[in-house]
Amino acid sequence: MRAPDPARVIPAITWLTRYRGRELSADLVAAVIVTIMLIPQSLAYAMLAGLPAQVGLYASILPLVAYALFGSSRALAVGPVAVVSLLTAAAVSRVAEPGSAEYMGAAIALALLSGLMLIAMGLLRLGFLANLLSHPVISGFITASGILIAVSQLKHLLGIDAHGHNLPTIAGSLAANLAETNFWTLLIGVFATGFLFWVRGNLKPLLRARLGMPPFLADILTKAGPVAAVVVTTSAVGLFDLAQRGVDVVGEIPQGLPPVTMPPVDLDLWGSLATSALLISVIGFVESISVAQTLAAKKRQRVDANQELTGLGAANVAAAFSGGFPVTGGFSRSVVNFDAGAETPMAGVFTAAGIALTALFLTPLFQHLPKATLAATIIVAVLSLVDLGAIRRTYVYSKLDFAAMAATILVVLGVGVEAGVVAGVALSVALYLWRTSRPHTAVVGQVPGTEHFRNVDRHDVVTSETVLTLRVDESLYFANARYLEDTVYDLVARHPKLQHVVLMCPAVNLIDASALESLEAINARLRDAGVTFHLSEVKGPVMDRLKRSDFLDELTGQVFLSQHQAMEALDPDTIRRAAARHETDTGRVRAV
Amino acid sequence: MRAPDPARVIPAITWLTRYRGRELSADLVAAVIVTIMLIPQSLAYAMLAGLPAQVGLYASILPLVAYALFGSSRALAVGPVAVVSLLTAAAVSRVAEPGSAEYMGAAIALALLSGLMLIAMGLLRLGFLANLLSHPVISGFITASGILIAVSQLKHLLGIDAHGHNLPTIAGSLAANLAETNFWTLLIGVFATGFLFWVRGNLKPLLRARLGMPPFLADILTKAGPVAAVVVTTSAVGLFDLAQRGVDVVGEIPQGLPPVTMPPVDLDLWGSLATSALLISVIGFVESISVAQTLAAKKRQRVDANQELTGLGAANVAAAFSGGFPVTGGFSRSVVNFDAGAETPMAGVFTAAGIALTALFLTPLFQHLPKATLAATIIVAVLSLVDLGAIRRTYVYSKLDFAAMAATILVVLGVGVEAGVVAGVALSVALYLWRTSRPHTAVVGQVPGTEHFRNVDRHDVVTSETVLTLRVDESLYFANARYLEDTVYDLVARHPKLQHVVLMCPAVNLIDASALESLEAINARLRDAGVTFHLSEVKGPVMDRLKRSDFLDELTGQVFLSQHQAMEALDPDTIRRAAARHETDTGRVRAV
Repeated sequence: MRAPDPARVIPAITWLTRYRGRELSADLVAAVIVTIMLIPQSLAYAMLAGLPAQVGLYASILPLVAYALFGSSRALAVGPVAVVSLLTAAAVSRVAEPGSAEYMGAAIALALLSGLMLIAMGLLRLGFLANLLSHPVISGFITASGILIAVSQLKHLLGIDAHGHNLPTIAGSLAANLAETNFWTLLIGVFATGFLFWVRGNLKPLLRARLGMPPFLADILTKAGPVAAVVVTTSAVGLFDLAQRGVDVVGEIPQGLPPVTMPPVDLDLWGSLATSALLISVIGFVESISVAQTLAAKKRQRVDANQELTGLGAANVAAAFSGGFPVTGGFSRSVVNFDAGAETPMAGVFTAAGIALTALFLTPLFQHLPKATLAATIIVAVLSLVDLGAIRRTYVYSKLDFAAMAATILVVLGVGVEAGVVAGVALSVALYLWRTSRPHTAVVGQVPGTEHFRNVDRHDVVTSETVLTLRVDESLYFANARYLEDTVYDLVARHPKLQHVVLMCPAVNLIDASALESLEAINARLRDAGVTFHLSEVKGPVMDRLKRSDFLDELTGQVFLSQHQAMEALDPDTIRRAAARHETDTGRVRAV
Repeated sequence: MRAPDPARVIPAITWLTRYRGRELSADLVAAVIVTIMLIPQSLAYAMLAGLPAQVGLYASILPLVAYALFGSSRALAVGPVAVVSLLTAAAVSRVAEPGSAEYMGAAIALALLSGLMLIAMGLLRLGFLANLLSHPVISGFITASGILIAVSQLKHLLGIDAHGHNLPTIAGSLAANLAETNFWTLLIGVFATGFLFWVRGNLKPLLRARLGMPPFLADILTKAGPVAAVVVTTSAVGLFDLAQRGVDVVGEIPQGLPPVTMPPVDLDLWGSLATSALLISVIGFVESISVAQTLAAKKRQRVDANQELTGLGAANVAAAFSGGFPVTGGFSRSVVNFDAGAETPMAGVFTAAGIALTALFLTPLFQHLPKATLAATIIVAVLSLVDLGAIRRTYVYSKLDFAAMAATILVVLGVGVEAGVVAGVALSVALYLWRTSRPHTAVVGQVPGTEHFRNVDRHDVVTSETVLTLRVDESLYFANARYLEDTVYDLVARHPKLQHVVLMCPAVNLIDASALESLEAINARLRDAGVTFHLSEVKGPVMDRLKRSDFLDELTGQVFLSQHQAMEALDPDTIRRAAARHETDTGRVRAV
């Protein structure tokens, strides 16, 4: 066994050896911008996950360094993201009380499990598992999660209590406590939300038109909107001592670098978090790889799906050992990183340094930061994920795909995020199996005057009373093997004079073990009914595989190289009839 | 809306209207034979499910009548079967203590849920869901279940306590209590097991060779072996009062017809049994439909998969309301029914009457029936399900199919039956997606002197530096859409001079919403990289569907009717080079 190329295991080796001043300055600029954007996001997504604010900062330090070493994307910005934080809250609150030490421990265990699963998937080259999530399911999931997250954050805008993991419970719980709305909290919440929506929609055109700012700078300033909201509302709370008037604030955050944490080794806990960890891994991966590929393509670079799994896995393991929670590549953050000119993953390392400095020195500034402002940040961010147009487009394009999407949305909103993904995946796999469970088949007959055999429903062909030929136009495997059996038995039941059935296989590239058993069953059942079973036009590799089984020994009939040979052997009369009809037809044509 | 044809809802109407004396006598003979076989089986499988013996009888009365009304097979014999009883024990013992009233209630609820699920699947025409269970998974599941059941019954042969739902726990528990083995129980158990194996292997040839008995009669006598074992061992226990010596017996069974039971309406209970009910439904259905189809084919009859779902569903609902537990069509019992000449499902009604008479009058006879005899019946029956040859054949035929089978066997034995099925299904779907996640693609070039474009790896073709053409040989859907993206991005990254990418689609029959998004992503990413994206040879229906989306408007390039037109438009130089090379080649041939 050869030792693996170290640069393949740690892609950082490749770019670090060519790291020069030009890359350094570009990465530094990008890191400063991403850090400014990441500070409020990391605090907000920790709150969304039900965790203390500093956990968000911790999850934005070591995981970024780990990804920089092992990831393959040049521009991906890793850290806490909305959907994964929501999934974390759903999973962890099932096994522990929010606010308890067990809750924190479970979040750490979830990051560890998710990290180990991602690494295992990377090593075993299981990136294709992400294919299980079809686009309509992902799109429906993200839209519904966005709505669910936005609604769940309303409690912070109102300053009331509410809980639940689906729309009915959250809405009911909000309605029950609506009377306790805190005026000052609502004021801050409405201001922050309105301001952020205004920034998102109007600031950029304003900066460009009125101030003639270059598009890149206008863009960066727009992305800094949440920081402005944080500064303004935090100052207001501090100046007017609004915490005394019932405005919920982040409060004291411990100053310092992330602690070294040992994830709890508790097999029962791991068992109950395993499914959630798998969902978080796959969903996080799908989201991340999609933005990574988009950005890489712009520079004609490549990301390697299996290396991405390893990189994201390393990031989550790092989160688990430094007091964090599950992370993945964020969409808008990565785009900002790319647009700001990040050249290498070193930008992520610099961002981590920025967040580390924040954790060391700036946390006292967040003491008066109102939770309503963080909630506003989350709401404005996630509502941009809601894509109602995609629902309409999918409906127009394909009803089956729409069914999978609608199921995902309805179950996420009505039951919860995890149930929604599972329902969506199960339905899309089931619909796919259903779509492919009926291979195209045709009963064929001879085209007079040729050796061609064509579909009896479409062509004027000569057929035999005693020989029935069925052409299968797809590979045979477990999803459609039973349908083939049904089709053959139906045809035999409808043709009482039948003596031979020929299965014509010019388009069969694979016969799996299930399909082999179906062919054996067809052979045995036709034998019991006094009908012989033949094959024709079987491809070479399929024939080689069949020779490894007993099927060819037990076959009551033969395997014919061509369908014409089959008919000559089984029913020469029909061949003669076809020839005769051809002559009559030709004669008729001549006579005309 | 038209009223549905009553004979389609209740197939019994069709055969009842033509029911004559000939059918009556044939059905009566078959029913007598099946009843004799079913009595010990029903008692034994109730014991396997952890339920009182009479429950086995109850499950063999009304369910048979319900199936006769709604089922579509003429010969299927419904009732308790080994694998479903094992699944019942695994599911019910998770929610209730064996022997308790809750345990019985949960078994009844399981029958109800399974029945309702089967009926729903029948009405929604979801029979194709059974395709999820590939043959290797079913075969592995049955073999492993057979081993597990046989080992679990050893405790009755030894007269000791043991429990567990997988091989390690059962074996450990047997080993721990081995010292308490009861001599008399072991004697009866070894005698009954040895006798039954002898009957199965040697009685039929003996009866035919020595006594010149006709094969049919010899067969029936062989099937009555368990009854003989029951009679002999029950008499022995009664005569020598072996119950006093510690031989565990069935004991007093209440005399009378099945009680009317109301399944517990407890949503929590239903929720925790739902997955098990689904597994029992699908596995029971797959087993049942397979034997039903085999028997129907012998008379060139048909069974309707969706009608079978309704029939089995009705049988399970009937079981729930008459103190029974989940049932399905049994393999050996149905074969006996068929061989004994059953003409219509009325044979099942007569069998039900036979079991009802047994429940009314014969239960006192079972008081001294040793459990060891029932265990011997079960062991001999299930070991015939173990098919080690199938494991070897699958290994030889296909390693991927073998992997799914091996996973099923190992997880059933090591963890339990339900986990085993889930693992097998998940692995076979995953392997299938993996198998199909890489559609066959080829970069093509022009065959000089023709308008044909062929694989550059297999043919001597002319290619362009600025235009890359990729031919896809399969439909594009969520399982392989991402692979297509990867392939295109890889090719673009490797060809720096590229200006155009053409996707040649002569074999693409479907582009689902996921694949459409992938094509949109390819288009957008190639545009960002300065490469135009074109399609060629798109089939009509695929084109029609694409027109329903915005893709064609956003496409940076064009859709060409033929690949040759594409090359003429995008790189006429290469077309000229191909023509020139053809002339040189031809000239060279002429010169030779």
